[in-house]
Amino acid sequence: MGILSGLSSPVDLNNLGLEQLEELAEEIRQLLVEKVSATGGHLGPNLGVVELTIALHKIFTSPHDPIIFDTSHQSYVHKILTGRAGEFDTLRQKGGISGYTARGESEHDWTESSHASAALSVADGMAKAFELSGLDRQVVAVVGDGALTGGMCWEALNNIASGHDRNVVIVVNDNGRSYSPTIGGFADNLARLRMERSYDEIMEHGKKTLKSMGWVGERTFEALASFKEGVKSQIIPTEMFPELGMKYVGPVKGHDLKSLLHALTYARDYDGPIIVHAITEKGHGYGPAVNDVADQMHATGVIDPLTGEALSQAKPDWTSVFTSAVLDAAERRDDIVAITAAMAGPTGLAAFAEAYPDRFFDVGIAEQHAVTSAAGLALAGKHPVVAIYSTFLNRAFDQLLMDVGLLRLPVTFVLDRSGVTGPDGASHNGVWDMALTSIVPGIRVAAPRDGAQLRELFDAALDITDGPSVVRYPKGALPEEIPALMQLADGVDMLRYSDDAAEGLDVLLVAVGSMAGVALTVAAALEEEGVNVTVVDPRWIVPVAGSLVGLADDHDLVVVIEDGIVRGGVGSLLAEVLSAAEVDTPLRRLGFPSVFPMHSSRSELLAEVGLDHDGVLASVRSWLEGIVKD
Amino acid sequence: MGILSGLSSPVDLNNLGLEQLEELAEEIRQLLVEKVSATGGHLGPNLGVVELTIALHKIFTSPHDPIIFDTSHQSYVHKILTGRAGEFDTLRQKGGISGYTARGESEHDWTESSHASAALSVADGMAKAFELSGLDRQVVAVVGDGALTGGMCWEALNNIASGHDRNVVIVVNDNGRSYSPTIGGFADNLARLRMERSYDEIMEHGKKTLKSMGWVGERTFEALASFKEGVKSQIIPTEMFPELGMKYVGPVKGHDLKSLLHALTYARDYDGPIIVHAITEKGHGYGPAVNDVADQMHATGVIDPLTGEALSQAKPDWTSVFTSAVLDAAERRDDIVAITAAMAGPTGLAAFAEAYPDRFFDVGIAEQHAVTSAAGLALAGKHPVVAIYSTFLNRAFDQLLMDVGLLRLPVTFVLDRSGVTGPDGASHNGVWDMALTSIVPGIRVAAPRDGAQLRELFDAALDITDGPSVVRYPKGALPEEIPALMQLADGVDMLRYSDDAAEGLDVLLVAVGSMAGVALTVAAALEEEGVNVTVVDPRWIVPVAGSLVGLADDHDLVVVIEDGIVRGGVGSLLAEVLSAAEVDTPLRRLGFPSVFPMHSSRSELLAEVGLDHDGVLASVRSWLEGIVKD
Repeated sequence: MGILSGLSSPVDLNNLGLEQLEELAEEIRQLLVEKVSATGGHLGPNLGVVELTIALHKIFTSPHDPIIFDTSHQSYVHKILTGRAGEFDTLRQKGGISGYTARGESEHDWTESSHASAALSVADGMAKAFELSGLDRQVVAVVGDGALTGGMCWEALNNIASGHDRNVVIVVNDNGRSYSPTIGGFADNLARLRMERSYDEIMEHGKKTLKSMGWVGERTFEALASFKEGVKSQIIPTEMFPELGMKYVGPVKGHDLKSLLHALTYARDYDGPIIVHAITEKGHGYGPAVNDVADQMHATGVIDPLTGEALSQAKPDWTSVFTSAVLDAAERRDDIVAITAAMAGPTGLAAFAEAYPDRFFDVGIAEQHAVTSAAGLALAGKHPVVAIYSTFLNRAFDQLLMDVGLLRLPVTFVLDRSGVTGPDGASHNGVWDMALTSIVPGIRVAAPRDGAQLRELFDAALDITDGPSVVRYPKGALPEEIPALMQLADGVDMLRYSDDAAEGLDVLLVAVGSMAGVALTVAAALEEEGVNVTVVDPRWIVPVAGSLVGLADDHDLVVVIEDGIVRGGVGSLLAEVLSAAEVDTPLRRLGFPSVFPMHSSRSELLAEVGLDHDGVLASVRSWLEGIVKD
Repeated sequence: MGILSGLSSPVDLNNLGLEQLEELAEEIRQLLVEKVSATGGHLGPNLGVVELTIALHKIFTSPHDPIIFDTSHQSYVHKILTGRAGEFDTLRQKGGISGYTARGESEHDWTESSHASAALSVADGMAKAFELSGLDRQVVAVVGDGALTGGMCWEALNNIASGHDRNVVIVVNDNGRSYSPTIGGFADNLARLRMERSYDEIMEHGKKTLKSMGWVGERTFEALASFKEGVKSQIIPTEMFPELGMKYVGPVKGHDLKSLLHALTYARDYDGPIIVHAITEKGHGYGPAVNDVADQMHATGVIDPLTGEALSQAKPDWTSVFTSAVLDAAERRDDIVAITAAMAGPTGLAAFAEAYPDRFFDVGIAEQHAVTSAAGLALAGKHPVVAIYSTFLNRAFDQLLMDVGLLRLPVTFVLDRSGVTGPDGASHNGVWDMALTSIVPGIRVAAPRDGAQLRELFDAALDITDGPSVVRYPKGALPEEIPALMQLADGVDMLRYSDDAAEGLDVLLVAVGSMAGVALTVAAALEEEGVNVTVVDPRWIVPVAGSLVGLADDHDLVVVIEDGIVRGGVGSLLAEVLSAAEVDTPLRRLGFPSVFPMHSSRSELLAEVGLDHDGVLASVRSWLEGIVKD
């Protein structure tokens, strides 16, 4: 690591020539494979942007010229170049560096969200502010071709294009993939562009055009680039972005530092917004990633750095249960169709896509369209299953409410990675879905506590014909199945039942989904202390089951345990129903507080917010002290 | 109304020739002016699509071929042609026809939401379903050029373009305006296209191209149109949508029925997705609308049909207070900038735009970009004011949470039309904002009860530097100012104070924003019945003021009155805080129920959901019966 060890900040790149930069790229690639194979993380995307990131930091002056990484899971190289190379042993771990940009880590980091397609909007805003303040600063946004399928990018491009004097440099990191291959007409065109002409040919084309217009002789690229007003329309291919009037340079070979430096120099010196289109390869330089057909090692767990093989055995997880359930349903029913927003693999739909290609729709990183095109499918007689990470449904709340809910359409939303996720940080946690989905009139929301329940509740959701339904479950390995003592008429599962006539206070624990396990261990501990504890799993959390009202009335304290936010969560929904029924049994909520947590493991995070056994037990004990037996 | 009176359904158009259709257009235009001037409604947009809608219903077979109107405030002509001409006296009134498409009214109506840019996604879904079911049905989506600035359209176009065999006809109704003139690079290009070539010239161009390729001689348009495979690339201008591979016809003169019929026939017979670009004039044929520079009578109240003059005097409203407050703030502070999503006029920013053009940003109908570009502005040192209708903030919840909230950026959101709005129907009510915004960690939300409070709270919001702030207020005329008896240290206004020592039950009424008035009249009525009533206005509803906990503890019943949804609303937020403090005073919520209400007046709707004086009084009385004095 000869060159890397001499770097403490991006300005040190000024001292390096092309050959040294190429060596640096190799060192960084080595470091990435070595470190990320040990911690897990977004290996493929970062291997793809090594040269691009070096070139960006060589040409632009960060943080004076902000570099905004869209999604920012591809910011590892940026972190390495901005003083954090030594911290990669702690990647994504509690107290360690984040897998995304994080303002607390460095002045070179500007944003923190992992949601795609937002960087261009941030850049537009910053450029507007710099212009207003009379500051001569470039704003660079690095965005994947996949993220360009998200509507926000279009909104931003439309605005950036009309800001003729603002220096926004949009670097399209085009690896032909979102998570999986990028879809849609736009992607088709990018692919064509990639095939048709090399960057050199285009430069040649630019020169020829200029020559034929009598403006220049045999000029070098640098000379061309400085000839701004003249080259504007000539060196850009007419196929792309013309309706926006956006200037364009590319395609650039994204692993060729010389080409990148040339193109970025041109972009830096150009007055006004400009797009640089770089062709990169996800996983570049690392055989196991390049050869990984599914997703080129988009995100890995701990792997053998030599072979790329996973070092821990995958346990059966929630996602695989959904995969099997949706395949069975599709076999039974012709009207079942499935939709993903560029995440067929991680949401468990890849097998469905293979088995039923005509009934499978990958809409790109476009959650809004995923939801509203599902409404269209339902209007025309299908029952769509929209499989999506819980956190990304936030992008389509309006569509869920207005396009599906208002029309009471039978669309089933399957929310993977609900609740606390952990290492992916604040913006990947799925803690908002219960507060959000329960707002929609007529919706039904189910939270299965184990794999058997997931199957059963998913099938039940598909049988709902008069409105949307939601099935939510967490990330990771399946818990052991938890049998019910009995099921009440309205579907509530009684997991433990206390003797009401016994002495001692009577507590009702309402356990949402995967919190059933901790509720039972806490109940056992409390019973030893003389408390009578009933544990129920409502299974359907929206609407509130009527039996919960009677049960609450029969107990001295109700505690709702959920792995979503307290604010507007299931505890509050139950409280609303109890209050309307004038049942005033004290009710307490255990859930996610109103904070954006740092990254750490799921279990560390659950403990941190008091949702592990010790935390729940301590809270209930303390509340019981204030309760008088009814 | 000779021709119109003979029409009972769109199939009757088959019997009409061009001249009769032109007469019909005149009759419909007359009807629109006569009826909408008496009821109020979206006059300008509908006058602009008279010929277009006639042509659509002449060429396509609705409802077999669904016609989806984006936003659908331009569906009046569609309603007239589908059997509802006689019902326009009841437009937007309780029990009458809706100002938007409504499935309950007609099998010709497919959607109900008034939020823009969703129609293409619906159409994509329906076309996918028809293809899967082996049905040969066209799907037509009518979308304004303004709505195309919304990212959802881009997501949909990207998907529609890749469905090569699906018959989606996208009709771009290009009047150069959203509410106000459409902005952005895309709009600039549409404008250029409009100027550069007439439709006839383009057809001529198509013919010439074909001729030079040796395919056709002097063919007619119809012959050209049937020559599908050959003309695909030739008759479309290369400037638009090429990167999507989308076929394009236009621009078509949107008030020339002959041209429209030709173009739509071509589109109907073309296999695969196609765009028809029609140039229309908002308000066409009605002088007062055409000459209205501000918005060409986008939406009017009751007017004189001859002059277009408003017949009711405008009273000072909430919006005008905001206008004056934001102008004052901008004068004081250079860092204040303002953002609108295509609604400078209705949100009260028009005067700001005129006074501070450099500090004003209209981003198009692009709420996502409005919010995240505000984040960018704030990152670079500005304090953005995002003025938006409450209901449209739903479109940008994720951006509020992830791009503003996570970074704790000082952005102030001003939500006009909060609470119950009324005549614009279910999707225009602003009842969701408190449940949604209160989810964001670190946010502050204010609900002023009158104009003086709006000014004060807006100024206070601008002084917040460590996170987002929200100021929400309803539609319409300002209420009389309500003075506070006293202000508590944490900012809660005491509007009425009961003697705690007196006999009788003690009730605490927590009045959110504009509900202060009804809380006070109800309090007066209850006091006459021997109940001691305290009325407070928290002013800042998020976070919950600490003084409310003590006050709740001192009373026998807490009632929260809010003009937002009960689900996750302010009542529930207060309940969460009280529960965490182990204060178990019975708490009841009066707010908007979990339904999508029909259109009617604001006061009718408030009465319907029990939020008027009688409703609130009856509820509190009934609850008091179940309460035991503490």
